[in-house]
Amino acid sequence: MIDIHAKSQNPAIIAKKADDHSVHSTPKRARTRASLVAASRKLVFERGHGRTSIKDITACAGVATGTFYNYFVTKQQVLEAVIEDYRNQFASEIEETRSRLKDPAMIVTATLKYYFHQSQFNQEWRAFIALSGLTGPLELRQKDADCLSDIKRGVAAGRFKAEDIRFAQSLIAGMVDHINKEISNGRLASNATDEAVRYILRMLGLPDLVAKALTQSPLPPVAYRRHQTSQESSLNTTGTFD
Amino acid sequence: MIDIHAKSQNPAIIAKKADDHSVHSTPKRARTRASLVAASRKLVFERGHGRTSIKDITACAGVATGTFYNYFVTKQQVLEAVIEDYRNQFASEIEETRSRLKDPAMIVTATLKYYFHQSQFNQEWRAFIALSGLTGPLELRQKDADCLSDIKRGVAAGRFKAEDIRFAQSLIAGMVDHINKEISNGRLASNATDEAVRYILRMLGLPDLVAKALTQSPLPPVAYRRHQTSQESSLNTTGTFD
Repeated sequence: MIDIHAKSQNPAIIAKKADDHSVHSTPKRARTRASLVAASRKLVFERGHGRTSIKDITACAGVATGTFYNYFVTKQQVLEAVIEDYRNQFASEIEETRSRLKDPAMIVTATLKYYFHQSQFNQEWRAFIALSGLTGPLELRQKDADCLSDIKRGVAAGRFKAEDIRFAQSLIAGMVDHINKEISNGRLASNATDEAVRYILRMLGLPDLVAKALTQSPLPPVAYRRHQTSQESSLNTTGTFD
Repeated sequence: MIDIHAKSQNPAIIAKKADDHSVHSTPKRARTRASLVAASRKLVFERGHGRTSIKDITACAGVATGTFYNYFVTKQQVLEAVIEDYRNQFASEIEETRSRLKDPAMIVTATLKYYFHQSQFNQEWRAFIALSGLTGPLELRQKDADCLSDIKRGVAAGRFKAEDIRFAQSLIAGMVDHINKEISNGRLASNATDEAVRYILRMLGLPDLVAKALTQSPLPPVAYRRHQTSQESSLNTTGTFD
């Protein structure tokens, strides 16, 4: 098996990509924002969110305290940016694999399996969620717009059956969120996510035999490796999934 | 179409059925509990939960204030009992239809359609939820154990495919909860629930043509009519679904 490394995770690029306010999009602003985000992540891992203040974050990022408020209004907001960062990293890792697949059903399978795998075994993500104190919806799944276009492509190719594509996407999102909740409650058998993928493929109109074959066939491996700042090295997660 | 009337909704019977503490199961206790539940429902509709006190409830039920605490610890608890009451009513209404069906797939279809219909169009249920102030999980769907045995029967009959029945049930529950959320947010096209039923049937392993046919075929009508106390008459909901 050949490990496909994730795209370079330059924090400035991530910050720029994650940021939809054009006012933030000068390279310097993107860099400052990225270092605030990286500092927050580091401190949350080191001390937990409760013992991390905005002052700690700016000190760690090497900027004046007031600078924080040019980018974020609350501590919660910068922690949400860390989550967004993780999400972009996940999307970029699986994109590597997706880009080499042709069959829309295979693409959906690989994507679902990748996210379920992250949800079950990415200890860093789980640890960050636990330490971050964030309580909002912290879904770990493909972005809605991407899932929507995956389904659309499958329907156009005659591979999927869905009258209302938006609704199919929303249902899949609901299923994935539900499964993630079961995972975090420790209520899921280890092979259950494969069964879930098979259900979703059948739901999308694939015959059971095809759904089963797709779910069981080994997929191109993904090597996931997160960007490391110079300050951290212990929390790295690397592995393959198939 | 013949309307099949729901089983007599005697509050004493409902209370007895809903109550799993044997200490509550004397007929007199069941009657007192049922009148507290009925009084709470009535008052919540009349004034909302915020302006309904435990004293109001006991006064309306014609019992001493202290009596309340023989049955419930908090006001929230008696409101949850109203919800449980509604759920028992729904289960009993659809059971009428279910008992006359043989095909496990048809039973699942009828049950899903019934609950989605209630979720979309039962104004009384929606009004109660809104007025009750309850914020916990207020799912409107078939009880997990019943759904589990429906799937089991379908698998045994060779009609459904599911390796882990418990997991299939949990996934369906997740989908239904998600759809109900979409309904209450007003984000659902009117025919979307039929599409959802079709997806669930396909997920359970039925070929698309069969799933489509089952979803589209008219089901035995259900007349749903809730028990009315002598004090109330305006909030009745009656109708058929097919």
